[in-house]
Amino acid sequence: MFDFEHESLPQRVRFGSGRAATMLTDEVGRLGAGRVMVVASPAEAARTRDVTASLPVVHRHEEVVMHVPAEVAERARAAAAVSSADVVVSIGGGSATGLAKAIALTSGLPIVAVPTTYAGSEATTVWGLTEAGRKSTGVDARVLPRAVIYDAELTLSLPVPLSVSSGLNALAHCIDAMWGPRTDPIDRALAQEGITALRTGLPQVVSDPRGLSGREHVLYAAYLSAVAFSSAGSGLHHKICHVLGGAFDLPHAQTHAIVLPYVLAFNAPADPEAERRIAAALDAPTALGGLQRLRHRIGAPQALCDIGFDGSDIGEAVEAITAVLPAGNPRPVTAHDLTRLLHAAWRGTDARTITSEREIQ
Amino acid sequence: MFDFEHESLPQRVRFGSGRAATMLTDEVGRLGAGRVMVVASPAEAARTRDVTASLPVVHRHEEVVMHVPAEVAERARAAAAVSSADVVVSIGGGSATGLAKAIALTSGLPIVAVPTTYAGSEATTVWGLTEAGRKSTGVDARVLPRAVIYDAELTLSLPVPLSVSSGLNALAHCIDAMWGPRTDPIDRALAQEGITALRTGLPQVVSDPRGLSGREHVLYAAYLSAVAFSSAGSGLHHKICHVLGGAFDLPHAQTHAIVLPYVLAFNAPADPEAERRIAAALDAPTALGGLQRLRHRIGAPQALCDIGFDGSDIGEAVEAITAVLPAGNPRPVTAHDLTRLLHAAWRGTDARTITSEREIQ
Repeated sequence: MFDFEHESLPQRVRFGSGRAATMLTDEVGRLGAGRVMVVASPAEAARTRDVTASLPVVHRHEEVVMHVPAEVAERARAAAAVSSADVVVSIGGGSATGLAKAIALTSGLPIVAVPTTYAGSEATTVWGLTEAGRKSTGVDARVLPRAVIYDAELTLSLPVPLSVSSGLNALAHCIDAMWGPRTDPIDRALAQEGITALRTGLPQVVSDPRGLSGREHVLYAAYLSAVAFSSAGSGLHHKICHVLGGAFDLPHAQTHAIVLPYVLAFNAPADPEAERRIAAALDAPTALGGLQRLRHRIGAPQALCDIGFDGSDIGEAVEAITAVLPAGNPRPVTAHDLTRLLHAAWRGTDARTITSEREIQ
Repeated sequence: MFDFEHESLPQRVRFGSGRAATMLTDEVGRLGAGRVMVVASPAEAARTRDVTASLPVVHRHEEVVMHVPAEVAERARAAAAVSSADVVVSIGGGSATGLAKAIALTSGLPIVAVPTTYAGSEATTVWGLTEAGRKSTGVDARVLPRAVIYDAELTLSLPVPLSVSSGLNALAHCIDAMWGPRTDPIDRALAQEGITALRTGLPQVVSDPRGLSGREHVLYAAYLSAVAFSSAGSGLHHKICHVLGGAFDLPHAQTHAIVLPYVLAFNAPADPEAERRIAAALDAPTALGGLQRLRHRIGAPQALCDIGFDGSDIGEAVEAITAVLPAGNPRPVTAHDLTRLLHAAWRGTDARTITSEREIQ
């Protein structure tokens, strides 16, 4: 437990519902910047105008595309150079943040990010670019936004199903951070805090989508989940979901929501500290019981067969996952384990069966 | 709760019992440094030699004095310049770290800190200097060590009474961080994690002073307490203890240990979130009950009258504390409140009486 290295990243984080414009002006001022390039998709145009009204904007860049295609990044970089911008302000979800990062990667310009989803990219040093259909990613200190502005009012328009799947994605980051290859007690403590906030916030978002409390909790958790997960690295859950999403084209968020309890049932009995932290955060006697209760309350999807996964592909998936298993998983993962896990997730079998077989082995 | 700003500071943290030398060489190498100035008192000479054996040391500076007198700082700065050091490695407690910070403050040299106590100074941007008997402090990003090496083996020789008082000091940092003037949920989560580690570690240090587990837990907590406290700022507890220590010359650590339950009893009923977090961290039904159980287990001091405080000074103390009350305390603090609190702490009265009167008001 106490044999680790942890790197804290320099970043200012501001929370304040309804105060995005003020906080943004303040943070741009702190950077001493006088020429702002705003990155936001046309869908964000109206509120972007509101939030940036008092900023010295020299260019508004609206070409925001998912996965940051290289040619889109090149045009944005050129626009930054031509306009002599000295700061990039991104307003939007992961795609807007991602484009700002692409600009910062080559120019070194500082970023102030205003997230409007629970993607979490704003709290990491990870960048991504897509060229000829191939996504490459990397890590660079320069792409970490200097400041992040969280204003839960900006997330009120996020539809409930998207909020739930995005929130469950944050939950998967937190739970997988417990046993990611570089995990440490600090990551685990932050992940535990994130799970606690999701346990409170997600049911509130479902029951009162226009209420700020639920949104604030989930936004706070999204930040923590990103900090913990990017420090800990991808664990077993994300390796499995990455293969299912990539090779079998399953929808990202639902895949995460379905697979998570099975990975938890598999790993938690072998990692008493993670079990204790997750159970405490979910305010439940057991981690798995708490997760299932939460999933039930917010109507999470149940089985991979419902989202287009074919049981006959399990063998191929197991092979692909076996090739990318993460270091440091709490217990060894055999092809047999993966087959059972995927079979259960495919049919939506009670995840407790995954724990039980192990316990009687 | 979700209206805050939080600044994460850039720092690498390494934990590894028995591995200080390896980790230190690694971190100095990462900085690209080739001329090491070592700051360590003569008392640390033997293990300093061990830990720095494979480093390119250009100067060993042994004049380490409590509270960093200005003339001591000047001599250390001159030595750094003369030896053309490009990194300062400090090995020791708060005084060694403090001297390294004094060098960094004017030279900008990076610091790698190897703490051998639970002081926590290594995780903050706060520096201090004493001139003509007057201590001045300030905040500067340059004095934050780039990397901190925590090796619990180096704390094994810290005597149990000193370990307990230093550990209780860390506990006071964590508890006061719950309601410091700039506190935020992230500070509170880190403080909660620190309290959890102290609850486990401190009794182990007392029952098994040569065991590593207790030492590791307390060292980890000392780091967290410093991060949380320096971000949140001094709360009511530290304002009270600062006055008692400064104006009445009471011993720092014991004063903290005695006053803490009274401040907790006073504030926690007005701050349900802090109450919940502290109680959970202490694994007790109530925060105060948990603190008292822990203090009892490790033999904490009980009353200010036992450490030289005169009851007739309470009036003067109340006046001095009233002048420095922190912003944002969970409940208003009147002179009457302070008088009752100090009277109870002076006599060592059951701290629950502080809570009770409030509840029947």
